[in-house]
Amino acid sequence: MKTRAAVAFEAGKPLEVVDVDLDGPKAGEVLVEIKATGVCHTDAFTLSGDDPEGAFPAILGHEGAGVVVDVGEGVKSLKPGDHVIPLYTPECRECNFCLHPKTNLCQSIRTTQGQGLMPDGTSRFSLDGQPILHYMGCSTFSNYTVLPEIALAKVREDAPFDKICYIGCGVTTGIGAVAFTMKVEAGSTVAVFGLGGIGLNVIQGAKMVGATRIIGIDLNSSKVELAKRFGMTDFINPKEVDNVVDHIIQLTGGGVDYSFECIGNVEVMRQALECCHKGWGESCIVGVAGAGQEISTRPFQLVTGRSWKGTAFGGARGRTDVPKIVDWYMDGKINIDDLITHTMPLNDINKAFDLMHSGESIRSVVLYD
Amino acid sequence: MKTRAAVAFEAGKPLEVVDVDLDGPKAGEVLVEIKATGVCHTDAFTLSGDDPEGAFPAILGHEGAGVVVDVGEGVKSLKPGDHVIPLYTPECRECNFCLHPKTNLCQSIRTTQGQGLMPDGTSRFSLDGQPILHYMGCSTFSNYTVLPEIALAKVREDAPFDKICYIGCGVTTGIGAVAFTMKVEAGSTVAVFGLGGIGLNVIQGAKMVGATRIIGIDLNSSKVELAKRFGMTDFINPKEVDNVVDHIIQLTGGGVDYSFECIGNVEVMRQALECCHKGWGESCIVGVAGAGQEISTRPFQLVTGRSWKGTAFGGARGRTDVPKIVDWYMDGKINIDDLITHTMPLNDINKAFDLMHSGESIRSVVLYD
Repeated sequence: MKTRAAVAFEAGKPLEVVDVDLDGPKAGEVLVEIKATGVCHTDAFTLSGDDPEGAFPAILGHEGAGVVVDVGEGVKSLKPGDHVIPLYTPECRECNFCLHPKTNLCQSIRTTQGQGLMPDGTSRFSLDGQPILHYMGCSTFSNYTVLPEIALAKVREDAPFDKICYIGCGVTTGIGAVAFTMKVEAGSTVAVFGLGGIGLNVIQGAKMVGATRIIGIDLNSSKVELAKRFGMTDFINPKEVDNVVDHIIQLTGGGVDYSFECIGNVEVMRQALECCHKGWGESCIVGVAGAGQEISTRPFQLVTGRSWKGTAFGGARGRTDVPKIVDWYMDGKINIDDLITHTMPLNDINKAFDLMHSGESIRSVVLYD
Repeated sequence: MKTRAAVAFEAGKPLEVVDVDLDGPKAGEVLVEIKATGVCHTDAFTLSGDDPEGAFPAILGHEGAGVVVDVGEGVKSLKPGDHVIPLYTPECRECNFCLHPKTNLCQSIRTTQGQGLMPDGTSRFSLDGQPILHYMGCSTFSNYTVLPEIALAKVREDAPFDKICYIGCGVTTGIGAVAFTMKVEAGSTVAVFGLGGIGLNVIQGAKMVGATRIIGIDLNSSKVELAKRFGMTDFINPKEVDNVVDHIIQLTGGGVDYSFECIGNVEVMRQALECCHKGWGESCIVGVAGAGQEISTRPFQLVTGRSWKGTAFGGARGRTDVPKIVDWYMDGKINIDDLITHTMPLNDINKAFDLMHSGESIRSVVLYD
C-alpha cells in the first residue's frame, strides 16, 4: 500500500512529506493507522546527525497513537479496530529483562530496532524500490506504519489520540521516572532540574504521588506560572543564587529526598545528586547527555547515603503501564492538554522542529486527517 | 582513674603506650573496660596525617569489645557487667536519621564526635592536666574508655571478645554492605573488587545471603585460597585479562547483579559500576578514596538501568544490628577466626600497623590482659 510520510532523507535537512510504499504486516506484526504523533527532542537529535546511531533515509517519530488496521499471522493480543500507542521500548514478557523485576528494558528486538529494521531484519517502508528505515521501532511520522505486536500498548477507545500520543514518550518518561523508577513516596521533597516538557511531567508525577514540596529549577523564570499549575511549590533560578546546591540544602533543611535531571547537562546531573539529603537522597538522570560526556562527583556523596540512578521510558513496561497512564489522564489525575501547545498537519511537520528549537512550544502534535 | 592507652601524640609518629587519666562517665555515658580491639586501616589513615579531620593528641581505635564497668546518670539500657561493642556510628533512635527507614547515619552526636569530644564538648582523657582527644567516639586503644550510651551495642556474654571486636568495624562493614545496604538476594551474581579484610567479609556476606556466583578481583593472586574458603567462586586478576569490565560481562553473560568496591580506588569504582548488568545491576562503594578524588562515568550507564550507591558501617544500625551479627558468628554463619591473623598485647600495637602496611596481616587484634 501507499502511505504519506515525512521522510528524513539525510541528516541536517528538513523532512520531506512524500508517498512511500508500505508492505503489510508479517507474522507477529501489526499495521497501524497513526492518528496523531508528537515531535520530540529525540527526533530532532537524530535528524541533526549528532546521534551516533542515526541512519538515513528513515521515517522518524516515536510518540504516536492510532488504530489497528490489520494483523499478521499469529498476532493474538490485538485485532483491527483496537486503539494503540506504539512503544519504542517493547514488552515481550519473555526475555530475561522482561522477567526481571527491576527493569523495563526489554531486549527481545533491540538489535534490529537499533538498525532501523523490523525483527526479521528487513524494512516495510520503501520508495522507488529502495528501502527506507524504521526509527525506534515506531516511525510515527508515517500515516500508516507496521510494528511488532510486542511494541504496541492497547488502550481504551474513549481516549483522544491527539492527547494520548504524548504518553508514547514524554508523559511516560516524566511521570514514570517518579512513579516507577524512583517510587517517590507521599510526603517527599523533590527537586526537578529543567522545566521543559519532561520536567513538567516529573512535577505532575510528583504531585500525583503526593510529594509535599516540589522545587523547580530553571534558568528561565518565565516557566514559573505553568510549572506552578502542574504542582511546583518552590522555584529557583540558578542565576539568582550563589550556589544552587547550597541553596536547595538550606531551603529544605538538609537536601531533597529525590531529584530529577531533565536537561541532559552533566554539570546539572552533579548538582542534582549533591542537593540530595545525606543518608537517603536519591537522584535520577532523565535527560540525555551529549555523546562522550561524563558525570562525576566525590565518592563521599554516595558513601554518605546518596544514590545515583537513571531512567529510560520512565521505567514503564509499555504494554502493562501505558494503559494505566491513559487511565490517569482520563481520570483527570494528570494534565496533558496544557502541555500540547501546538498542532499541525503532517505537511507542516518541519514547523514543529522550528517551534522546539526556538523554545516556543512545549509539545507540538501532528494530526493526520 | 588511670588507664593504659596507646596515644597518638602527633601525625606520622608511632603510638606511645602510657598511663593517662580518665574521668568517670557523666550523664548518659558509660565506662567500658575494653578487652580486645582490632587495628583498622582507618586508624592508620588518621595516624598518617592524611585525614583532614584528624586531630592530635588522640587515643585512636574504633573496633573493640569489652565490659561495662560503670554507668552515668540516666543510663537505662546498660548496667555494669554487660558485654558491649563500641559504635562509631551510634544509634540514638530519636534523630531524623534514625527515624528514616533508609539510613543508619545517626547524626545526634556527630559534631562533637568529629571534634574528638564527648557530646558535652569535653574530653574524658587527659595527661598531666592536658586533654587528650577521643577518636570516632570510641578510643578503643585505651584499656578503659567512656562512651555515650547510644554508642554501645549490648551483645551476648558467651561471645569471645578477641573475635567479636572485629564486628565493631570490618565485619559489619562488609557483611552489612551486602545484607543491609544492598539487600542482595539469594541467587544473585556478585563481584567483589579487592580481597582484603573488607572484601573477604563482603564475600562471606554474599555467601550467607545465598548469592550463587561470587567473583573476586584482586591484583594479588595469593589471596585466592582464603577467598575461596570464604565463598568466592571465580577469581580474576586484572593483570591477566585485557579489560576487567569486558571480562566480567562475558563471564556472566551480561554483567553482575551487584558489585562492591573494597579498595578506595576511584578507577576501580568506575569498573565496579560498569561491570554491572544493564537494566538492574547495582554497585556499592565500600572503600574510602583519597581526599579530593572523584568518580566518573558516562550517564548512559545509569540511564540504562545501573545504580550507584555507597555504604558506611555496612548500613547497620549499631545497637539493633550488631547483636545480630554476633549471633551469626556464634551460629557459625560467618567466619571471623580466619580473618584475625595476628594478636598482640597493647605494648606491641605499633607492630599491628607494620603488619598492615606490609600486607602480612588481614586483621591484627590487640588483647588487653
